[in-house]
Amino acid sequence: MYETLTWHVDDDGIATLTLHRPDALNAFDLTMARELLQVFTTEARDDAVRAVVVTGSGRAFCAGMDLSADGNVFGLDESLAPTPEAFRAAYDEPPYADGVRDTGGKITLAIHALPKPVIAAINGPAVGIGATMTLAMDLRLASTKARIGFVFGRLGIVPEACSTWFLPRIVGIQQALEWVYSADILTAEQALAGRLLRSVHEPDELLPAAYELARSFVTDRSPVALGLAKQMLYRNSAAADPLEAHLTDSLAMFWTSIGDGKEGVAAFLDKRTPSFSGKASQLPRIV
Amino acid sequence: MYETLTWHVDDDGIATLTLHRPDALNAFDLTMARELLQVFTTEARDDAVRAVVVTGSGRAFCAGMDLSADGNVFGLDESLAPTPEAFRAAYDEPPYADGVRDTGGKITLAIHALPKPVIAAINGPAVGIGATMTLAMDLRLASTKARIGFVFGRLGIVPEACSTWFLPRIVGIQQALEWVYSADILTAEQALAGRLLRSVHEPDELLPAAYELARSFVTDRSPVALGLAKQMLYRNSAAADPLEAHLTDSLAMFWTSIGDGKEGVAAFLDKRTPSFSGKASQLPRIV
Amino acid sequence: MYETLTWHVDDDGIATLTLHRPDALNAFDLTMARELLQVFTTEARDDAVRAVVVTGSGRAFCAGMDLSADGNVFGLDESLAPTPEAFRAAYDEPPYADGVRDTGGKITLAIHALPKPVIAAINGPAVGIGATMTLAMDLRLASTKARIGFVFGRLGIVPEACSTWFLPRIVGIQQALEWVYSADILTAEQALAGRLLRSVHEPDELLPAAYELARSFVTDRSPVALGLAKQMLYRNSAAADPLEAHLTDSLAMFWTSIGDGKEGVAAFLDKRTPSFSGKASQLPRIV
Repeated sequence: MYETLTWHVDDDGIATLTLHRPDALNAFDLTMARELLQVFTTEARDDAVRAVVVTGSGRAFCAGMDLSADGNVFGLDESLAPTPEAFRAAYDEPPYADGVRDTGGKITLAIHALPKPVIAAINGPAVGIGATMTLAMDLRLASTKARIGFVFGRLGIVPEACSTWFLPRIVGIQQALEWVYSADILTAEQALAGRLLRSVHEPDELLPAAYELARSFVTDRSPVALGLAKQMLYRNSAAADPLEAHLTDSLAMFWTSIGDGKEGVAAFLDKRTPSFSGKASQLPRIV
Repeated sequence: MYETLTWHVDDDGIATLTLHRPDALNAFDLTMARELLQVFTTEARDDAVRAVVVTGSGRAFCAGMDLSADGNVFGLDESLAPTPEAFRAAYDEPPYADGVRDTGGKITLAIHALPKPVIAAINGPAVGIGATMTLAMDLRLASTKARIGFVFGRLGIVPEACSTWFLPRIVGIQQALEWVYSADILTAEQALAGRLLRSVHEPDELLPAAYELARSFVTDRSPVALGLAKQMLYRNSAAADPLEAHLTDSLAMFWTSIGDGKEGVAAFLDKRTPSFSGKASQLPRIV
Repeated sequence: MYETLTWHVDDDGIATLTLHRPDALNAFDLTMARELLQVFTTEARDDAVRAVVVTGSGRAFCAGMDLSADGNVFGLDESLAPTPEAFRAAYDEPPYADGVRDTGGKITLAIHALPKPVIAAINGPAVGIGATMTLAMDLRLASTKARIGFVFGRLGIVPEACSTWFLPRIVGIQQALEWVYSADILTAEQALAGRLLRSVHEPDELLPAAYELARSFVTDRSPVALGLAKQMLYRNSAAADPLEAHLTDSLAMFWTSIGDGKEGVAAFLDKRTPSFSGKASQLPRIV
């Protein structure tokens, strides 16, 4: 079905998305970009999918943009001369926006908008877009063989894929600045010490750990509660005032308390396992 | 005076607020909500109060919402069908807003608005609203017996009380997502490692440590300087641009430099203890 | 050329700015304020300067505002009674704004706006404005002899210089509140544990470490890529939504991919060192 990746959903609703161009160290090209966008905007949104684990095929996670590709590597239209105002105005207007929009960002925005846990299982080198795409995933686990590099400065380009929004929220501004300025390749240990990674595992224990974590997030949990919590955490982490959180909280508590919350409270009082019927595809609107 | 809590102010102006339903593990109900709101909007605002320490009576801090209470546990009006727009428009309009507003958020917004240090001394289990209410307090100390759980996902509801605004600012977005997704009960050690707690203490050393810290914050300090600093840190932690901080800084420096700052500088030059006359109840307006 | 500081640029483009009032522990006065503003808005903006290291002359970094100075220490006009609205409206209107604007903030806003790495090498006591001015620098290295104090509360004044914007982004809100409330002098070890410092060094190894770091940031790197990355990291760390990052990313990727990125990719494919021609003084506009 896909040229550059594989997609599999198990009986517990844990999906595995594998970047699959092993001969090219899973380097990212415009085909992979289209296919990732397709997965995150359609298949991953199926209610049968409760969480997504992303990993790489072979010895790499993703070696970054495939700079050896023929033609227009970044997919941009060099004849344009965009200003911020022109780009904002034309954001939804192809082909102008297609000629300007950062390809990596299209994908990380889709990952970010998915109302389910997404876990990166970084099995090897993750460089450039291979590193930045993991920042929009909720948690990052890595193998001891992982190597992570925000190498853009060496290539004369900038960190993309909304990475400058995510990275400071994960590791703090001082660490983010150092890694982006240095453009070095980090070991798994360095990335763990800097709080980029949630945990580091022996290579053959990485995927089992990612699956165990994913399962712990979704077993007997309400997909509605989880989906809303993801929206609320990211949104309110960036909101100007706690009053903004009070607004989302009030609406989310209202709708869940008359939805899956009724079953959750009843099951708690009955000391039984809850059986939730809410669907992540039908979240109440809270913003 | 209160049914569900006790309130005491010592000679140094350190107030102790004790959640006091020990037979119910200090579970939170609508009476406790009303009384907490009363304390933080009136008594704690008295200028005789310089800092507040919050703890629990008996072996728990707060076991969460009292789900065994008769009737409408969450205090919401199920006949409403609020949209974000309708809720925002009706925010100040009872009974509509009363039927929608998150109860926990009313309290954490009041804690947040108090221009004085508030310290949580978490002496035992703090679950659900028992955990989230501490996030609006400025620092969290805990006993080795503390257990902290953002358990909402197990009940089919969402983290509330503006917790999605506070938690990522305290522990970072990756840790916040994991704790909310897992909905597990954390030990004091786990919560310390994840930077939720400022420090962990032997049970009988918890309150002394909290009082020592509170005293170190207020002894020979200007209540105006402290109150403004609290407003500035929270507000500017969420401001879009440092220029916003420059505006609050300029106004706060202006007013303090011709207020308590005059006495502070004079005392410094005279090598004597300052005697400040400013009041937290009369902060200059800086936003 | 300057009364209160020295400025030197080496052959690699690494500038050293030394606060130089050693007999006064490099205390900050209105002359130093004027000279710092001059350096960061003119000399440091020269394209020959690739990064700036800031340190102190003698045994201190900066002992804070020189409170022993004759006359109007803070440089404010006590006859004004500014409201937030009046100050915002008159922000660009001297002498009104001059009578209200926080002096430290003028300098940290200029440091923040410099599109190049700025590294603090804190060689000794850094107190008050001596501490807060380092927060607008991108990374903070310190000597074991450094002592850092946000001592404002003891003087009846508030943390200034936009420090309440930077500090929570560096160390988290809980640590920021504790340090500002306590107004204590921190050792280098405490400041490192609290993540304020990037690293601590023996006194005679501090400047070499700062230079090595600065060199690693600029050698064979594009000044345009670095300058844009600095703007993007700070701006998007505070942006309400990742979509804002997508807009800056798209414009920055567009312009760099047809600028220094062309050379960077070509050099990468040729396995040679890139030779970038872009200038930090001519960054494309991305916001």
